[in-house]
Amino acid sequence: MPNAAEHAHNTTVGQLGEAGILEILQACFQGMTTGEGVLGPGDDAAVIPAPRGNFVIATDAMNEGHHFLRQWPCGIADNGYSTGWKLAAQNLSDMNAMGAIPSAVSISLAMPKNTPATWVAHFGAGIATACRRLGAAQTIISGGDLTRADSIATVITATADLVDRPVLRTATEDLTGYRLIHCGNVGLAAAGYAVLSQHELPTLTRADVRAIRGFLRPRPPLDQGPSVAGKVAAMMDVSDSILTDADRLATANGLYASIDEQWTARKAAALAPIAKRHGADAYQWVLTGGEDYGLLAALHPDRQVPQGWDVIGQLTTEPQARPEITGWDHF
Amino acid sequence: MPNAAEHAHNTTVGQLGEAGILEILQACFQGMTTGEGVLGPGDDAAVIPAPRGNFVIATDAMNEGHHFLRQWPCGIADNGYSTGWKLAAQNLSDMNAMGAIPSAVSISLAMPKNTPATWVAHFGAGIATACRRLGAAQTIISGGDLTRADSIATVITATADLVDRPVLRTATEDLTGYRLIHCGNVGLAAAGYAVLSQHELPTLTRADVRAIRGFLRPRPPLDQGPSVAGKVAAMMDVSDSILTDADRLATANGLYASIDEQWTARKAAALAPIAKRHGADAYQWVLTGGEDYGLLAALHPDRQVPQGWDVIGQLTTEPQARPEITGWDHF
Repeated sequence: MPNAAEHAHNTTVGQLGEAGILEILQACFQGMTTGEGVLGPGDDAAVIPAPRGNFVIATDAMNEGHHFLRQWPCGIADNGYSTGWKLAAQNLSDMNAMGAIPSAVSISLAMPKNTPATWVAHFGAGIATACRRLGAAQTIISGGDLTRADSIATVITATADLVDRPVLRTATEDLTGYRLIHCGNVGLAAAGYAVLSQHELPTLTRADVRAIRGFLRPRPPLDQGPSVAGKVAAMMDVSDSILTDADRLATANGLYASIDEQWTARKAAALAPIAKRHGADAYQWVLTGGEDYGLLAALHPDRQVPQGWDVIGQLTTEPQARPEITGWDHF
Repeated sequence: MPNAAEHAHNTTVGQLGEAGILEILQACFQGMTTGEGVLGPGDDAAVIPAPRGNFVIATDAMNEGHHFLRQWPCGIADNGYSTGWKLAAQNLSDMNAMGAIPSAVSISLAMPKNTPATWVAHFGAGIATACRRLGAAQTIISGGDLTRADSIATVITATADLVDRPVLRTATEDLTGYRLIHCGNVGLAAAGYAVLSQHELPTLTRADVRAIRGFLRPRPPLDQGPSVAGKVAAMMDVSDSILTDADRLATANGLYASIDEQWTARKAAALAPIAKRHGADAYQWVLTGGEDYGLLAALHPDRQVPQGWDVIGQLTTEPQARPEITGWDHF
């Protein structure tokens, strides 16, 4: 965590001013602001190469009290690092879902004056480390905006380069009978959120900690999106839940999604020890838990399943019976 | 203002849900989501053409209570339209400053549940209308994020295509003796802010209204940046103030900025009637007022001043005497 230690724990961003905050972030992003053909940040805007003549772009927001907390009910604190990590991870996941390789991210950070300077340092370190550890070390920080707000509001916009045609949710071909395949964690973030939300937890097991990490620092499989582009017929990342997102992919193609019960049972079994301790339902986590940022794709039945992916069901013309579950609405 | 009337004035975004809010915005952005080579939004991300093999990118944030109000002390209300306009205008201004033509904007909108649906409709209409009226009708809405926050937090990220080399703040040549030239409003937004901030204003003159418009709906000269690219040696937009930004441009080139007193006097004279009525100093507005989003550039002494631009001073090796003025810091 670069330069977090340089500031006394009680220094606030109001005391540092814009230039001081920028200095902290620039230290976090050392080596991430230059590259071949890259100009800026530091000017009014940055110039980012787009060698294929186009670029992919998506935006994600995380607000304090709604998408992250500095102190979780179970007693775990987030010093800013996990917020930075998750902000980057979920946005890079959108690039992954298009089969694209991240080129740059722009960051907007709005904070109250009394925000500790160390929070900014850890937030920046979280973004930088997520880019590196998730396999997107080439990501340029293309700039952003630093400003005031009543509570911390963060927004990130990633851009990326395609390696093939963009992989969309809606295929050009009829997907009837195509297999649904998945890669990445499932239900783990929901389990982590459940653990974090418990009040006064006496002890944490290793499985609890793994789940908490899954929620606070998700690990989208960024190598997989570009690697299966051109092989799968449709793709999206699973940000809301397996059921919701499989239905979205199916609906976009005029079909229904059938989810393999054996796959669900296997995934639920892996989370059962955590669920049991906390009086929760592991099936619910697997089917309706969001924020794992795995990939969900439609694969032609004759095609080989890519390594690291599970077949989790198929696309059909018949409506599927579903457990009674309510979807997630951001409002 | 498309479909603002469709919702009862007391419908909130919490009642509409994410899908309902998206519908409102999609109606505002009709015809702005497709174009040659454009894919999305609607998928995980959008694909935007970058025919020259690179793109310009910058991000701006506006938060309620810090950068905009729904109700100003003088009694003027902003139903969301001016906020949308200004958010787009200031971000497109950054593209202008690089000599680039906007290709797309992504918008992040975080709101409390009780935000009126009509606010969203007017906000969207403000963005769309600013793009059209400022001469950037080709701008694609490349997506964004809709989510919850305790107060309204908006962020925009524009991308653009260069028409020449990017015009930076720091020139490759020595700028000693180069003229400082300017295009666009100056001091008008500061005058407007002063009027808006007065409590219980009995009447508004035409000049007051023009100034208020200048602050709430700034008009960056978007045709000028690309048109002078390749002719000026350095350029930036004036978002903070003539003095601050001229100093920044000078410092970036190892020089000092001298501002022509006659130009200042002429500009101040134009604002004097407003200043007089409100007991303010028009010189202060001209030299230290921000948010007009004009362009400031360095021009070789032998080059012709482009039409619509003023010579406002020059770059020198000697420090310049300055009125005592404190700069603006975002924290």
